[in-house]
Amino acid sequence: MSLSLQLDASGDLKHFLTVEGLPYEMLVSILDTAESMTGVTVRSIKKVPLLRGKTIANLFFEPSTRTRTTFELAAKRLSADVLNIALDSAATLKGESLLDTLRNLEAMYVDMFVVRHSHSGTAHFIAQHVAPHIRVVNAGDGRHAHPTQALLDVFTIRRHKPDFGSLCVAIVGDILHSRVARSQIHALNILLTGEVRVIAPRTLLPVDVESFGVRVFYDLEDGLRDVDVVIMLRLQHERMQSGHLPSEYEYYHHYGLTRDRLQIAKPDALVMHPGPINRGVEMSSSVADSPQSVILEQVSHGIAIRMAVMSMALARTPTTP
Amino acid sequence: MSLSLQLDASGDLKHFLTVEGLPYEMLVSILDTAESMTGVTVRSIKKVPLLRGKTIANLFFEPSTRTRTTFELAAKRLSADVLNIALDSAATLKGESLLDTLRNLEAMYVDMFVVRHSHSGTAHFIAQHVAPHIRVVNAGDGRHAHPTQALLDVFTIRRHKPDFGSLCVAIVGDILHSRVARSQIHALNILLTGEVRVIAPRTLLPVDVESFGVRVFYDLEDGLRDVDVVIMLRLQHERMQSGHLPSEYEYYHHYGLTRDRLQIAKPDALVMHPGPINRGVEMSSSVADSPQSVILEQVSHGIAIRMAVMSMALARTPTTP
Amino acid sequence: MSLSLQLDASGDLKHFLTVEGLPYEMLVSILDTAESMTGVTVRSIKKVPLLRGKTIANLFFEPSTRTRTTFELAAKRLSADVLNIALDSAATLKGESLLDTLRNLEAMYVDMFVVRHSHSGTAHFIAQHVAPHIRVVNAGDGRHAHPTQALLDVFTIRRHKPDFGSLCVAIVGDILHSRVARSQIHALNILLTGEVRVIAPRTLLPVDVESFGVRVFYDLEDGLRDVDVVIMLRLQHERMQSGHLPSEYEYYHHYGLTRDRLQIAKPDALVMHPGPINRGVEMSSSVADSPQSVILEQVSHGIAIRMAVMSMALARTPTTP
Repeated sequence: MSLSLQLDASGDLKHFLTVEGLPYEMLVSILDTAESMTGVTVRSIKKVPLLRGKTIANLFFEPSTRTRTTFELAAKRLSADVLNIALDSAATLKGESLLDTLRNLEAMYVDMFVVRHSHSGTAHFIAQHVAPHIRVVNAGDGRHAHPTQALLDVFTIRRHKPDFGSLCVAIVGDILHSRVARSQIHALNILLTGEVRVIAPRTLLPVDVESFGVRVFYDLEDGLRDVDVVIMLRLQHERMQSGHLPSEYEYYHHYGLTRDRLQIAKPDALVMHPGPINRGVEMSSSVADSPQSVILEQVSHGIAIRMAVMSMALARTPTTP
Repeated sequence: MSLSLQLDASGDLKHFLTVEGLPYEMLVSILDTAESMTGVTVRSIKKVPLLRGKTIANLFFEPSTRTRTTFELAAKRLSADVLNIALDSAATLKGESLLDTLRNLEAMYVDMFVVRHSHSGTAHFIAQHVAPHIRVVNAGDGRHAHPTQALLDVFTIRRHKPDFGSLCVAIVGDILHSRVARSQIHALNILLTGEVRVIAPRTLLPVDVESFGVRVFYDLEDGLRDVDVVIMLRLQHERMQSGHLPSEYEYYHHYGLTRDRLQIAKPDALVMHPGPINRGVEMSSSVADSPQSVILEQVSHGIAIRMAVMSMALARTPTTP
Repeated sequence: MSLSLQLDASGDLKHFLTVEGLPYEMLVSILDTAESMTGVTVRSIKKVPLLRGKTIANLFFEPSTRTRTTFELAAKRLSADVLNIALDSAATLKGESLLDTLRNLEAMYVDMFVVRHSHSGTAHFIAQHVAPHIRVVNAGDGRHAHPTQALLDVFTIRRHKPDFGSLCVAIVGDILHSRVARSQIHALNILLTGEVRVIAPRTLLPVDVESFGVRVFYDLEDGLRDVDVVIMLRLQHERMQSGHLPSEYEYYHHYGLTRDRLQIAKPDALVMHPGPINRGVEMSSSVADSPQSVILEQVSHGIAIRMAVMSMALARTPTTP
């Protein structure tokens, strides 16, 4: 299972694949480490020698300049050497040839794989098959998980509203297809968040959504009442074409966050979004740029969280055999 | 205006966007700093720790391996971390989405943007909108300016013929479409060059060219008489297709620099070109490779000028807020 | 000739272009240096400052992520700055424009070119034309040579079976088109290997193959008898289409290394392959993953050999003029 795969015998972080099942103490320990990393990123010399001489390979089977860039920056600020390897997911999904690629990179003494793949479970699969001294970080796999995104989100919330037990957090949008939402819900539940809501049309909700430990709302205005944090999900254009949604205009009409609707939430409610925003689809520009928006803080914290996860996972690696 | 945008309250370099309006002292100060940087590039260890821990993002909206490479090398030799970001100019020109991209990179604690764009004014636009601690360097925008190229050109001239007041410099070729020529003319005028000439067919001259403070020649041989420096511009193949020019052969016949024609200039006249040369179009191979050619020196000095501009602009940055 | 091109007046390594004609002492010296480099790659901090401040440009005129990656990692572990330059072989093969590209990179104070090209002799041509302080390493040129591959192969053999005089080594597959095989044969002969065999169908053997100093077998089972090392070459898919071979299935049937056939060789025979393996074409998966296979060791040793060659070639470079 994930848990034993992620932690080693002494309970330290080995791989970082999913938020699901992560012990409360480990999750808080990552957030605390990220807190110290934010200190590095605002110094004049934004670099620490923690991972000097380590090699981190970004294995991106699906393109994502944005996520790759944050991992690359995080690695460089830890003084690691970074190798960007773009892989064709079709060519390497035939298990055996993917394994051959991994074996070769291992043989080049790569210390960590940061994996992005359109198929759920790829990072797990890789973690199960790498040599014992190699570390794996999941940078998003299919609909399954995007754990560093979820951690930067709860890190951002904690900096503003640290008492999770008293918070009501609403996640709005395409829950059905979102690895981000899945990871966020796990993280918020582990932190014993007072209430976690999901707000979406029925067509964008998984059938078993209630079992996630969330309260479901189909109406945005109902769902926003008294919330402390509103997390808007990015709407993928593909969903419109596949018939899950009528049009961007319709979506915005029913689920777009406007200034007026935001006033239904608590007066100091935070507005969050994993980016990049579709302005006028998920929210109005006035909301995106309002003082309540912490969307750019999320980007900054993404560097700190990735530095934390990378340095913790590589802290105790044995020297290669 | 550009001036207040480029210099801070104490007159130090903040952004480097254009040569136009640059105070004489600042231009000389950049050349002097570049002089000390040439010392770094010939040492056995070609690296100084001036920008260690700084992150420089190359934002190239139009491809240019050559210019990007020189900026990348300059940044690495200053010990900065470099991020190469290829951007689709079509997708990001809708102001808002360009700004969102910038805000995101700012949030990742990037310290400097090196910007290349096919639209005039993009680097200015970015400099006007970035956070106060971010620095912007223009690596070429539309027909407007290519200021580091112009500075490496006058730097190269100064190393051979430092008394600008007594010099006659001729710029030959497609003045109309050349951001390089515009920036060169500004730099030469700021340095109080004795005479600046432009030599070109009428179809390749702007209508208001006389207002640039240059003497205009339509005939190459007339224009070359007694010049100390001949700067040949690169001929873009697109010009031929657009009807501005009959053919490469015709162009070379009238405006190509040959051994014979070069003899009309002063005996020790320098031959310059921003590269890459079209041999047999702008000049003959014998001229390109002659002892009077300082074309490869220009390339070397390009590294020194970029190191100077980057280190000066980032010398006094406040720590990020 | 190659020899005088590769070694300087005092017999030190200048360029590394081919194994052919390399003195025994130099070959052993590279292997010994690589031995010390393997120590670096297994340390916790896999980095030595040997090439700090040096700039190494990977000039890849034909794409090869795998080889480029190993050179890039080797350079970074020596603390060099790396520049990856993808070049279009068509555009730059007109001698003059290739030279202009080289002159420009020289002017940027690049210290070493690592060259990969589909035309035999390109690395030699470049070495003949670069400035005296520049070093060139051949990363594969046409059908001619792939010298770092051959050296990592004999390095891998030496670690297991150091007494070359008593060894029988068989190279199996497409000898005709293989730069790897050519370089391996030279290296094995310089090390005075007891017997070098080539095993291939007539259509995949050069007409003058006997002159290489090898014993020729057309039948795999005959050729495998009593060998200490079996080197399987990669089969290029293009060969099938060009009519050199009937089909992959046919090839495997006659020349594929299976468990049964491997038993014809000595019981402790090593199985080698330059990678990436076509499982079920050159060999069965059971052979590729068997304890006799040292294929992944070859990959690791590739880093050490490249670190050795790069550091030796750049050890004594004069400072740029």
